[in-house]
Amino acid sequence: MALGMDSLKERVRSQMPEKRWAHTLGVMESSVELAGRFGGDPVKAELAALLHDYCKYWPVDKQKDALLRHNAAGDLLGHDKALWHGPAAAAVIPGELGITDPEVLDAVRWHTSGREGMTLLDKIVCLADYIEPGRDFPGVHRIRKLAEHSLENALVAGFDSTISFLLEKGSAIYPLTVLSRNALLEELKSNQANREDTL
Amino acid sequence: MALGMDSLKERVRSQMPEKRWAHTLGVMESSVELAGRFGGDPVKAELAALLHDYCKYWPVDKQKDALLRHNAAGDLLGHDKALWHGPAAAAVIPGELGITDPEVLDAVRWHTSGREGMTLLDKIVCLADYIEPGRDFPGVHRIRKLAEHSLENALVAGFDSTISFLLEKGSAIYPLTVLSRNALLEELKSNQANREDTL
Repeated sequence: MALGMDSLKERVRSQMPEKRWAHTLGVMESSVELAGRFGGDPVKAELAALLHDYCKYWPVDKQKDALLRHNAAGDLLGHDKALWHGPAAAAVIPGELGITDPEVLDAVRWHTSGREGMTLLDKIVCLADYIEPGRDFPGVHRIRKLAEHSLENALVAGFDSTISFLLEKGSAIYPLTVLSRNALLEELKSNQANREDTL
Repeated sequence: MALGMDSLKERVRSQMPEKRWAHTLGVMESSVELAGRFGGDPVKAELAALLHDYCKYWPVDKQKDALLRHNAAGDLLGHDKALWHGPAAAAVIPGELGITDPEVLDAVRWHTSGREGMTLLDKIVCLADYIEPGRDFPGVHRIRKLAEHSLENALVAGFDSTISFLLEKGSAIYPLTVLSRNALLEELKSNQANREDTL
């Protein structure tokens, strides 16, 4: 199975309502833009963005089956179902769409929670998902501003908005989201220290 | 070594400035009150409250030494120093003050972060530390209101205030704080389900 970009797009589009497809196009656009700004691979970024919500509108039981069939459930089944679709997509995409690039699959897998030690591609797709042009939530303007200069600062602000939202709802916070944010803060601190060393 | 309550108080008082001693007296008062309200052991609650900040004003190097000497550092040395004094106190108190009751020592150890599966005594001391009469921070009034009816709801609100504060400061969040809050939310959900079962 080798699908060209047009066929891939049709296959992804068929898995979701039109509104989510418009969001996917927005994440593709923002991912390419961020890749250009921060030295990422724009082709991989666009591909990962195209694929990131492949399972988002699958029935949750189908997402769960995909995770279990591929031994990819980890601690997810004890946490919010909204966290399942990224890891489910990374699990099924090699078989269903023939995409096997581990960097692309990682960016798909971790796009909701992030992870400790996010790659450049992980950061690009995760941040694009927060700031694509169709997004509108409290604080998105500030995150877009930060994204002009720093992937890490913008992503911290993105995770801040997610955590604040969960606090307000009285909902559980996925521990990996906090670990991802802590790791980004560490990264920012050590970048700062390195800059000061070279002055 | 067997110290009566008056000697213990003097020993604890000598470790901290007067302002922190006033806070300690407030936590003792609130702990006894909460124990009465929620069926805890008031004597243990008062004792744990007396001891909870025993190491709070120790130089951080002394806190660190105490943790290392007692193999009690866990993941703490990679996290905010403000988290060290509870575990340090639980480690040194048996040797320095002769208190060995594991329930009391646990409530001291976990009073800042909480833990998954907090005991009634853990909850009482941790919550009293948020709401003792001398405390004044955004949201404390709401936490005191919640504490009239539910330890768990009030503690979730307490952890919410800590997490919000760290978000605003751009500081790391200790993962155990999030795990403690998640566990309390689960507990509230299962209590709710049990109540509905018996209706």
